Amino acid sequence: MAEKKKRRRADSDSNSASQPFKNLLKSDAQILQILKSVTSSSSSSTSKPLTLADLALSSTCREVSDLSLSSVQSTIESLVLQLTHQILSGQGFSFIVPSRSSSNQLYVPELDRIVLKDKSTVRPFSHISSVRKTTITAKILSLVHQLCLKNIHVTKRDLFYTDVKLFQDQVQSDAVLDDVSCMLGCTRSSLNVIAAEKGVVVGRLIFSDNGDMIDCTKMGMGGKAIPPNIDRVGDMQSDALFILLVEKDAAYIRLAEDRFYNRFPCIIVTAKGQPDVATRLFLKKMKMELKLPVLALVDSDPYGLKILSVYGCGSKNMSYDSANLTTPDIKWLGIRPSDLDKYKIPEQCRLPMTEQDIKTGKDLLEEDFVKKNPGWVEELNLMVKTKQKAEIQALSSFGFQYLSEVYLPLKLQQQDWL
Amino acid sequence: MAEKKKRRRADSDSNSASQPFKNLLKSDAQILQILKSVTSSSSSSTSKPLTLADLALSSTCREVSDLSLSSVQSTIESLVLQLTHQILSGQGFSFIVPSRSSSNQLYVPELDRIVLKDKSTVRPFSHISSVRKTTITAKILSLVHQLCLKNIHVTKRDLFYTDVKLFQDQVQSDAVLDDVSCMLGCTRSSLNVIAAEKGVVVGRLIFSDNGDMIDCTKMGMGGKAIPPNIDRVGDMQSDALFILLVEKDAAYIRLAEDRFYNRFPCIIVTAKGQPDVATRLFLKKMKMELKLPVLALVDSDPYGLKILSVYGCGSKNMSYDSANLTTPDIKWLGIRPSDLDKYKIPEQCRLPMTEQDIKTGKDLLEEDFVKKNPGWVEELNLMVKTKQKAEIQALSSFGFQYLSEVYLPLKLQQQDWL
Repeated sequence: MAEKKKRRRADSDSNSASQPFKNLLKSDAQILQILKSVTSSSSSSTSKPLTLADLALSSTCREVSDLSLSSVQSTIESLVLQLTHQILSGQGFSFIVPSRSSSNQLYVPELDRIVLKDKSTVRPFSHISSVRKTTITAKILSLVHQLCLKNIHVTKRDLFYTDVKLFQDQVQSDAVLDDVSCMLGCTRSSLNVIAAEKGVVVGRLIFSDNGDMIDCTKMGMGGKAIPPNIDRVGDMQSDALFILLVEKDAAYIRLAEDRFYNRFPCIIVTAKGQPDVATRLFLKKMKMELKLPVLALVDSDPYGLKILSVYGCGSKNMSYDSANLTTPDIKWLGIRPSDLDKYKIPEQCRLPMTEQDIKTGKDLLEEDFVKKNPGWVEELNLMVKTKQKAEIQALSSFGFQYLSEVYLPLKLQQQDWL
Repeated sequence: MAEKKKRRRADSDSNSASQPFKNLLKSDAQILQILKSVTSSSSSSTSKPLTLADLALSSTCREVSDLSLSSVQSTIESLVLQLTHQILSGQGFSFIVPSRSSSNQLYVPELDRIVLKDKSTVRPFSHISSVRKTTITAKILSLVHQLCLKNIHVTKRDLFYTDVKLFQDQVQSDAVLDDVSCMLGCTRSSLNVIAAEKGVVVGRLIFSDNGDMIDCTKMGMGGKAIPPNIDRVGDMQSDALFILLVEKDAAYIRLAEDRFYNRFPCIIVTAKGQPDVATRLFLKKMKMELKLPVLALVDSDPYGLKILSVYGCGSKNMSYDSANLTTPDIKWLGIRPSDLDKYKIPEQCRLPMTEQDIKTGKDLLEEDFVKKNPGWVEELNLMVKTKQKAEIQALSSFGFQYLSEVYLPLKLQQQDWL
């Protein structure tokens, strides 16, 4: 009892004037009302997403799609049959492989993502420069065919170890795996080759993982690990009003412990730094199935924006798969360069940008996906001009719970995202 | 239907002679019988663990223990009171801080872990060399006191950001945080300061995470993320016969997809590489509460054994907390250097050890915790002599499921661990 009293006293202490803008906060009910209007307009506006075909680009650009395991299997079998005919008719053994080089990539503003153009190269067996790569390609096709028959998932590392002598190092088997995706016209996850899992999710989401129903409101503070294989994820249900995409662990932990998703119904997801394929696929699936706005909480530095862009428009080396990996229309909630002054982040919690940071920032200003959003350009210009950056954690200078108790609620109330 | 048939054919293909030792496998029921006898002998032999007091070392060695939040709070308050008396009586303001240097560390073979000896240093405010560190110490104590009052968890990064001007960089606040743990005689998790979560768990375990009951047999392929704060983990129940500690993700994914824990009741846990504090605490808690043997599956290289040793005996820079972080009596299941020949791992799947690898291996041979296990010494000598290493994934050369279908069952059947 004595202890209880002590705690209460401490609580009221902390709600002091040292937390800027706390006085601006409306009631939770009012903020929820604001969010509901946003969500309903967002989900109604989500018409059928544009495709390459809509833009009459399907003949000059190439994208892969999710294929069922049996389609992958029969595509491989048709390809092998075709190769056999080719050999029997005296034309020799060669693969036609789509080029994945950067000269064959294109940013399509209407789609807001990078896609692959239609250039291909011939990979003949009977040439000294390509005989090894052709053999590797045939081996990878045969391994993927095995995975189809067995219906199991393996990692890229597993693939590599099936024939170290042939592949020599994993870079070679990985590269050909991407080639095979392009050749078959399917996503890498359709090949049942998966990357290590890294992300976690918590909040107002129910989904099935390999047949087990998972309720993410009942996952404690640790949350649910995002499954490495998206094809066994399904049955998504949610009463959330938005998805909160968090760059890093520390902020995720704060929000999970405070059960922020119970105060403002949302789904909180993080890849703990660089986005991995599993988290990107999971986010995309949530956005598509639940039609919720995605708000991103990242550090105020060029890498924060870069991470946001990987979720949003894809990374260059997997551009052939951008349609499946990218989540359109992610909003930049914070921490934005203009927030540093607006929220009076103390000088000592801001960090000077290094030369490399500034260069990365300037490079981003040249990217099409930044340019098309004037608000982002303005923010990024401010960052490069002030040469200051700040982590999400900088908000802790106003108290450990400032993030969940003032900053985020106020952002939501003011619909302050770009 | 046609597809089903195709798959069956492929399955029987793969069960060919290319999987060494498959013919040695007994039935699952027989292997389970073997495991049950092991588990029952293991749990009965776990008498009360030895402590420093039992060894009459409690006056010369120092260990911290888990304290409740209110004990931490009152310990801080007593300390501050004592400091006030000290100042008022004219003795000035100084902290007595246990030394955490390596000269103050000791490996205790009876406990099989590294502990801290009893040397302390004085940290006076009125000295130019220690005034900053004394101020930082006072600040950290006050922050931890706040955490006690609010009953929330924060990360080390959050602590740092409360006063960047004072701490300058996070290394300084982190170091003093460890000092404060030692001064108060409590574990770092008792201070409610947590590290980012990294580990996942799946299999025959039910536990509560922050009040939510988690059934780890129903966590699909992704598994349950291990919570960052062990003090909110409880109510562990299990019908498992052992805990399988896996070094890396890829092997974890294979076992999770194959639901290995349903064939041989077990709990599968991984920190995905270097063990983090949360996973170490979770493993320790499972071992203590469930009294199950822990079998480790790591790469056959010096780092695999090093990772095993961190789980088992602790890391040097947190030696003051070794009693709480270490799990005694972890068995080295595989991949062991002698397995490479025994399981006929093809030459091309073995990798030559680098100079650095060999040096690390030789250094390990000098460590007390290796020396006390003759089986480990023998294996490590073999590794250093053959100069060969291999990853768990090397088993994929016999088929992707060789690990879960032959290698592990045979290891269990033969009780082949050290």
